[in-house]
Amino acid sequence: MFDFKYYTPTKVMFGKNAEDKVAQLIQEFGGKKVLIHYGGGSVIRSGLMQKVTDQLDKAGIPYVKLGGAVPNPRLSLVYEGIELCKKEGIDFLLAVGGGSAIDSAKAIGYGVMNDGDVWDLYDYKKQAKASMPLGVILTLAATGSEMSDSSVITKEEGLVKRGYSSDYGRPKFAILNPDLTMTLPDYQTACGCTDIMMHTMERYFTNGGNMELTDSMAEALLRTVKEQAKILVKDPNNYEARAEVMWAGSLSHNGLTGCGNDGGDWMTHKLEHELGGLYDVAHGAGLAAIWGSWARYVYKDCLPRFKRYAINVMGVPATGSDEEIALKGIEAMEDFYREINMPTNLKELGVNATDEDLALMAHKCAVGVNGAKGSAKLLHEEDMLAIYKMSRKD
Amino acid sequence: MFDFKYYTPTKVMFGKNAEDKVAQLIQEFGGKKVLIHYGGGSVIRSGLMQKVTDQLDKAGIPYVKLGGAVPNPRLSLVYEGIELCKKEGIDFLLAVGGGSAIDSAKAIGYGVMNDGDVWDLYDYKKQAKASMPLGVILTLAATGSEMSDSSVITKEEGLVKRGYSSDYGRPKFAILNPDLTMTLPDYQTACGCTDIMMHTMERYFTNGGNMELTDSMAEALLRTVKEQAKILVKDPNNYEARAEVMWAGSLSHNGLTGCGNDGGDWMTHKLEHELGGLYDVAHGAGLAAIWGSWARYVYKDCLPRFKRYAINVMGVPATGSDEEIALKGIEAMEDFYREINMPTNLKELGVNATDEDLALMAHKCAVGVNGAKGSAKLLHEEDMLAIYKMSRKD
Repeated sequence: MFDFKYYTPTKVMFGKNAEDKVAQLIQEFGGKKVLIHYGGGSVIRSGLMQKVTDQLDKAGIPYVKLGGAVPNPRLSLVYEGIELCKKEGIDFLLAVGGGSAIDSAKAIGYGVMNDGDVWDLYDYKKQAKASMPLGVILTLAATGSEMSDSSVITKEEGLVKRGYSSDYGRPKFAILNPDLTMTLPDYQTACGCTDIMMHTMERYFTNGGNMELTDSMAEALLRTVKEQAKILVKDPNNYEARAEVMWAGSLSHNGLTGCGNDGGDWMTHKLEHELGGLYDVAHGAGLAAIWGSWARYVYKDCLPRFKRYAINVMGVPATGSDEEIALKGIEAMEDFYREINMPTNLKELGVNATDEDLALMAHKCAVGVNGAKGSAKLLHEEDMLAIYKMSRKD
Repeated sequence: MFDFKYYTPTKVMFGKNAEDKVAQLIQEFGGKKVLIHYGGGSVIRSGLMQKVTDQLDKAGIPYVKLGGAVPNPRLSLVYEGIELCKKEGIDFLLAVGGGSAIDSAKAIGYGVMNDGDVWDLYDYKKQAKASMPLGVILTLAATGSEMSDSSVITKEEGLVKRGYSSDYGRPKFAILNPDLTMTLPDYQTACGCTDIMMHTMERYFTNGGNMELTDSMAEALLRTVKEQAKILVKDPNNYEARAEVMWAGSLSHNGLTGCGNDGGDWMTHKLEHELGGLYDVAHGAGLAAIWGSWARYVYKDCLPRFKRYAINVMGVPATGSDEEIALKGIEAMEDFYREINMPTNLKELGVNATDEDLALMAHKCAVGVNGAKGSAKLLHEEDMLAIYKMSRKD
């Protein structure tokens, strides 16, 4: 196993009406003037925004609102948020929404507290030295950004989607009320479950440094999300299932399920990032559309993990050759994706990619600042292209 | 499931030579003058103390040393530490050792930063409003105090052993190097594994508010510690096994394995606390000596959990009646204790308790500030006495 750092300082308030504590939490972490950052109108229509601003008014905490964070959040809005914070003397960020609002808020926080262009962080040109304190009210269980150190921003020019990770980006608090995710469309719920599982799967499929405690807890999390996702397809208002998935979303990306490993594989995410940059598909659906092809391409190079996954997560009987067991695990996972109405290839995702599109994505993925990478199997540009082609079901 | 708060701000540095980062971490958390608190001479004989003070000297961080923390750490030393901190203008505590040094340091931190007698906290007469920042270099995997909010102190007068929990008590950082636990006597290692498992078992055996994610991760942790403890009986220098146990120790008591439940049972701990106060036995061994009797006394009132534990943790086949499965799980756990040379009753623990002793302990446990309690089964004084008697193998 490898040495590791584990640092999850986010104070999580989990449960019904947890959002009633927002003013108190902002004060606890020293906030005096708040930027409330959110996405579309759903948090307004649901009454959540009113609930939040009522509390801030009552507590005498001034605030400014900035909406408009979209899936694959845009750099231009980040710039706008930075200017707004500086102009208004904001000292605390409150993201109300899902990963888009949180990631966008993280980037705003970096931009206010670090000199120069904030994109330089996402372009791996420099490191953050600070950020603004950030609190979260989560309305979509998926990205795990509410406890994670990471954020993903898309630069409109060239549609470049890049992630940046720093402990400064970890939120001070996260309010997790499963009821707030009840109104999500089923497709978004399934996308969230896919993303949540993938954050642990990316850490799980590695060729180095495994720790039994991490692996067995990761498998527990994966089994749980798989079963709860199936419940939510039929019963989207099931509070318990919503809660299981919501808490799993935070634990799946706060570092816990990767302790002691080599950092993980992350190629499904990287391949999807290029997809998301070019086509603006839902992140979770993009992951599902790519994963099976990636898995079939790499599994022989990471056979012990694929075998273990098949048995311990997918419940495949431990009979037959290792390869047979591993393949059955991949098939079972694809069956699961179908069961929750997720795509298993680009066509089902609704993407009709030309050869040129695939070549462009593979090239961007390979020559970008992330470079050729992967732990289950080291992938170069031609490997990435092969996986994209497989995912097109040529 | 119940609503919950999850807050584990401790920055964990895990792995070989992690202690080399101690000066850097103290500075990161603002320490200017340090009290190094430790137990006996083992940290001096091992060279660890020299390594620590060399680093502080090099970094120009002044320090004062206070040794003498013993298992079931004493209030008198806490008072001494408080006076020393005030006299020397200490602003940061560094505990080097196991749970005794850490718990003692936590109490010192409370004493310095809160007016009045620090024992009032442990006597449930008031709440802490602050504490001193605390860092930990762990040399014994057991209590989980390095990430937990709790500490246990024994008042010599009347041998009263009491725990106090507050988020203020959570360490700022914890240095976890499995190599530092290599020189532990086998008995202490087994005691540690017992304590680690018990921190999750206390949270697991409840009659309310279970969460599947929590339960399945708890079972993963318990299975892991069980298997690694058996490895360490035969191969105490196994780094991987030491690491699994060490990390499990932190996760088992930081709150993770209790999210969504009703707070847990904790009666084995409470019954052991009275034992520990009166006889000064090793905490882990005391827990092992009590648990089987507690389990046999309460299992019918918490049958679904005992059944699940038997199957998912102890590997008992799911055949027969629920009671049969549950009892087989308890037997398997006692077999496991024997396998790692832990006692399963008071005689094996080396305690020859008279009826009067047992009655006194039951009385103290029941009428103390903790009161009659338990989630698996609510226990009153006569129940506690019955369990003590069972554990004496009358």
